[in-house]
Amino acid sequence: MEGSTGKGLDVRENGANCSDEAVVIPSCCLKAKASDPEVDAICHSTVVSGWFSEHQSSSDANLTEVYFNNPMWPGEAHSLKVEKVLFKEKSKYQEVMVFQSSAYGKVLVLDGIVQLTEKDECAYQEMITHLPLCSIQSPTNVLVVGGGDGGVLREICRHSSVKLIDICEIDQMVIDVSKKFFPELAMGFEDPRVHLHVGDAIDFLRHAPQGKYDAVIVDSSDPVGPAQELVERPFFESIARALRPGGVLCNMAESMWLHTHLIQDMVSLCRQIFKGSVRYAWASVPTYPSGVIGFVLCSTEGFPSVDFLHPINPIENLEDALHYRRELMFYNSEIHKAAFALPSFVKNEVESLRDC
Amino acid sequence: MEGSTGKGLDVRENGANCSDEAVVIPSCCLKAKASDPEVDAICHSTVVSGWFSEHQSSSDANLTEVYFNNPMWPGEAHSLKVEKVLFKEKSKYQEVMVFQSSAYGKVLVLDGIVQLTEKDECAYQEMITHLPLCSIQSPTNVLVVGGGDGGVLREICRHSSVKLIDICEIDQMVIDVSKKFFPELAMGFEDPRVHLHVGDAIDFLRHAPQGKYDAVIVDSSDPVGPAQELVERPFFESIARALRPGGVLCNMAESMWLHTHLIQDMVSLCRQIFKGSVRYAWASVPTYPSGVIGFVLCSTEGFPSVDFLHPINPIENLEDALHYRRELMFYNSEIHKAAFALPSFVKNEVESLRDC
Repeated sequence: MEGSTGKGLDVRENGANCSDEAVVIPSCCLKAKASDPEVDAICHSTVVSGWFSEHQSSSDANLTEVYFNNPMWPGEAHSLKVEKVLFKEKSKYQEVMVFQSSAYGKVLVLDGIVQLTEKDECAYQEMITHLPLCSIQSPTNVLVVGGGDGGVLREICRHSSVKLIDICEIDQMVIDVSKKFFPELAMGFEDPRVHLHVGDAIDFLRHAPQGKYDAVIVDSSDPVGPAQELVERPFFESIARALRPGGVLCNMAESMWLHTHLIQDMVSLCRQIFKGSVRYAWASVPTYPSGVIGFVLCSTEGFPSVDFLHPINPIENLEDALHYRRELMFYNSEIHKAAFALPSFVKNEVESLRDC
Repeated sequence: MEGSTGKGLDVRENGANCSDEAVVIPSCCLKAKASDPEVDAICHSTVVSGWFSEHQSSSDANLTEVYFNNPMWPGEAHSLKVEKVLFKEKSKYQEVMVFQSSAYGKVLVLDGIVQLTEKDECAYQEMITHLPLCSIQSPTNVLVVGGGDGGVLREICRHSSVKLIDICEIDQMVIDVSKKFFPELAMGFEDPRVHLHVGDAIDFLRHAPQGKYDAVIVDSSDPVGPAQELVERPFFESIARALRPGGVLCNMAESMWLHTHLIQDMVSLCRQIFKGSVRYAWASVPTYPSGVIGFVLCSTEGFPSVDFLHPINPIENLEDALHYRRELMFYNSEIHKAAFALPSFVKNEVESLRDC
């Protein structure tokens, strides 16, 4: 697709399935493949070259301006001015970088992809957490997969009904870096309800008691490298098993402008596995590709059945939830309902959402 | 603000009013000021330098990749890969450029700011048109201010109740360029209901009969240069005068992530002038700054009073509207209602929207 016009909304190429290495990988998956060295090289030569060669502190006298380029998609990039690189190291799993930007506060980058910025993290963390937790009555046990920055924990803690929060994050360095540079997110780890498990989520879920959780939140990076298995059938099956009847899953699910084929794959798969409701929602997050991020919400069969579109557990009714530790900045019950309204092209391109 | 941390959501600086040249211009207005040569120079030195020096065709053998940088805001930029520059000329009012991008189809740029791309123009054109027109019964006479690309005309034409469409665009070159390079937008000019007036909208409105229009749509560029006066009191007063009782205005109104002070100013002003309802809505448009664009919707006093949140004239009920000339891609009645749901930080920062 490199060099094609990109006209129109449909960016699929012969319906190739991204998660299957045997088939041709559509160009829209290059973002997700950025940790693959070969693709990474292509990506840098097409997206980054000519702008700056590597991340450096702006104290370097030879450079007046340094930008970080987020290679979002072949043919486009979002760039943030770097005031100072605060941290850059390879963990066992990925390259972890933190820099101070001039416009979005501090920025966390994993394998060259922006994960969060201080300015707009509220939208992502609040939506991925409260969309599921406000859709069920009195959530008690919650599992977070990924989420090592702690932001989702911070949000779950607003729900006083919650008694136990398990978090399974594979990369200790992400946790350490967040505690050092992002105290507003890492504050989530301070809550005594939080139980941290550093390790593989697949393995963790395999050993989780059946029906233990009211809600599971998958806050993973893009589905490649450490997160590759987190978009495949066995993973979703193990989540469905770990959820109680009428329990809910919220899973990060890419951009409706860029990755409708990934959304189609994920929604179809989830409809096979989760026998309750399966819905797609989205939110505005400026520093994510195309300025939006999506979520697939699923429920297991059970009583009461879950109606994601009408939050049964509105956050405005929860004691102290709006101000717990820090003010709720993005999410409210109106935004919750609005998040499920889909543009017509999404319904057209994602067959499994046509009836939503 | 250049060099500050940009932490948090509030980017206002001492409440300075952007439209007033006498006061300090907040850095967030640099985008709107990009057509000012002096600010333009600053902008280029901070945002663009080091990436590429000027727009060139990729047929230039010395350059493997050429990108267009949209200077959105100090400290960030959104960049599109240029396949070929198709047009670049100075009109009497502004620099007009068209290029073929690799990922978003053809792109129209005025004074260095992306106005539309083929991939995502549907979101902007459909929302700015149908939000107002679906909020009143049987719109008959409509005025478009700006909108020289024709996209808004294309959308208005879906409404068979409309008998007259006046459009007042100041720059003939924008119209000509659209007719040559953007036939999917310029098709709007072909409708016999359309009456084109090339000239100054302030002047046009001064001579418009009182109460002539059911709806006015202001599809202007950023409020500087030719569009400077389009955010000031006399302009809004002349629109209110030209609208019938219970008529509606929809006005482009920047990004809720970047320009809450501009939104505050515009909403406050409109509340003083329009005695019906004044509301703020937004939509996802990837190639606009921060990935969103906002709209201020206003109605004049009259019966029936306008309730923007519940479209009285749903597009799904209009004969042939969904497929007229080309398929409706973004807008539907659910998206209409959802567009008015505001993130909590917007209500906190924009005092005049707190009760919305």
